[in-house]
Amino acid sequence: MILSAIQMAMAEDVATNVATAERLVREAANQGAQVVLIPELFEGHYFCKDQTAEDLKRAIPIDGHPTVEHFRSVARELGVVLPISVYERANNALFNTVALIDADGTVMGVYRKSHIPDGPGYTEKYYFSPGDTGFRVWNTKYGTIGVGICWDQWFPEAARAMALQGAEAILYPTAIGTEPPNPKWDSSGHWQRVMQGHAGANLVPVVAANRIGREEGRATEITFYGSSFIADPTGAKVAEANRTEEAVLVAKFDREEMRQMRLSWGLFRDRRPELYRSLTGLDGGACC
Amino acid sequence: MILSAIQMAMAEDVATNVATAERLVREAANQGAQVVLIPELFEGHYFCKDQTAEDLKRAIPIDGHPTVEHFRSVARELGVVLPISVYERANNALFNTVALIDADGTVMGVYRKSHIPDGPGYTEKYYFSPGDTGFRVWNTKYGTIGVGICWDQWFPEAARAMALQGAEAILYPTAIGTEPPNPKWDSSGHWQRVMQGHAGANLVPVVAANRIGREEGRATEITFYGSSFIADPTGAKVAEANRTEEAVLVAKFDREEMRQMRLSWGLFRDRRPELYRSLTGLDGGACC
Repeated sequence: MILSAIQMAMAEDVATNVATAERLVREAANQGAQVVLIPELFEGHYFCKDQTAEDLKRAIPIDGHPTVEHFRSVARELGVVLPISVYERANNALFNTVALIDADGTVMGVYRKSHIPDGPGYTEKYYFSPGDTGFRVWNTKYGTIGVGICWDQWFPEAARAMALQGAEAILYPTAIGTEPPNPKWDSSGHWQRVMQGHAGANLVPVVAANRIGREEGRATEITFYGSSFIADPTGAKVAEANRTEEAVLVAKFDREEMRQMRLSWGLFRDRRPELYRSLTGLDGGACC
Repeated sequence: MILSAIQMAMAEDVATNVATAERLVREAANQGAQVVLIPELFEGHYFCKDQTAEDLKRAIPIDGHPTVEHFRSVARELGVVLPISVYERANNALFNTVALIDADGTVMGVYRKSHIPDGPGYTEKYYFSPGDTGFRVWNTKYGTIGVGICWDQWFPEAARAMALQGAEAILYPTAIGTEPPNPKWDSSGHWQRVMQGHAGANLVPVVAANRIGREEGRATEITFYGSSFIADPTGAKVAEANRTEEAVLVAKFDREEMRQMRLSWGLFRDRRPELYRSLTGLDGGACC
């Protein structure tokens, strides 16, 4: 299983971004990548910096979505799996969604971002309903993969839910950078360590693809910090991009070896599901 | 809140180990520590290397337990909180237990290790029943703390359950080192990263206290790798011991600042408990 993360800056217009992403996907495929992760909402600038009703018009139904259709062709041609992150309109609801394209160009299904952040510069609750699909995995040509979206990456429950469904790798397309209230504050280390923890706790590789570049909103600007990375099943980083440059990361993993490691380490054998009910809000555990 | 981890080698006899632990607790208290963590089962060698019925006799009821009583006096004298790890006999059941001693010497209650490992060198399922207390936190003189025990440290669910109950710090007494089937295999980085992930995901400090030294069992030997550490609420290590030497780690945290960080970061606001049922085995999520 050869996993790849793409790091790129976004232009204002869709066509430029689709072309850039395609160029980098081709580069990854040339390096042998089988599953290639493009950053979150790569069709344009990260519009959630401000709350603008006009930006709600960016959402498009998945069925026939031009960017998804475009990358179905790319996936089929190159024989790669592509999770494609888009702003989805589903009747009257809008979601932050990934369409999972298998290596033959089939859309295997969608995952809708479950955890929606909200704060200065990242006011996503204005734009997206909390996802209604639950956590999903897909048995692709190259193995079973789970995809979370950005803020999902901070929640151990999401990673665990995917691992329990058989995920052999977990991928997170992302858009994260400076925090407008305090531009000097840098969450990149924190961000990486939490996902490294998911990899180590679930004994699967984790791939995070972030954007780079400075984007100005109406009242708010963000510099996205890149730092895309791939972690091995012990949580160690095996590939990492810097904070400012375009990058294609590629890392190879042995599925059978990882499966054996998961079994021999015994973590999944020794879980105590009956003690975890407080995580679900049942048994009153979520309060106080 | 000033947290401390003690790292030490264990002798065969209880008196020597109690004396060593007390000496290091006093050293920590001299450095201002308010909560001091001694490693797991510090009364003796780690007996779970082999399966020996004789070793079952090490278990003692908590009520009147000599080592617990000893450290109640130490806690009262020094005004420190001490989680004390012992092998507990509870009628016909045996548990791997921590008694939580508050700074006035009161035993606030016990936590019984929930996740029990089993494998060459660490055959704990022979010695301990899976804990029946569930995850617990205690509102001590210096703040609310949660304690997991060794193998518990690999399970994000345990850390989350403590955080949801209000833990402002999570502590893990530990005994971990080489893996007898492959003495060259080193899990120390993996071990640290998973706990750093718990710290970062729950925005609380994590303290891990491990033993050092080589111990021979009947057929099995283990060299414990120390590497005790304290992580801050972003998962960054702020204090760390080496692999071979006795150590007293101390780190100070501002409770109000951490509480504010947890609120402003928004992770606990944005959880989706209704989507986490698969973690509990409900909804059939734990299979396949």
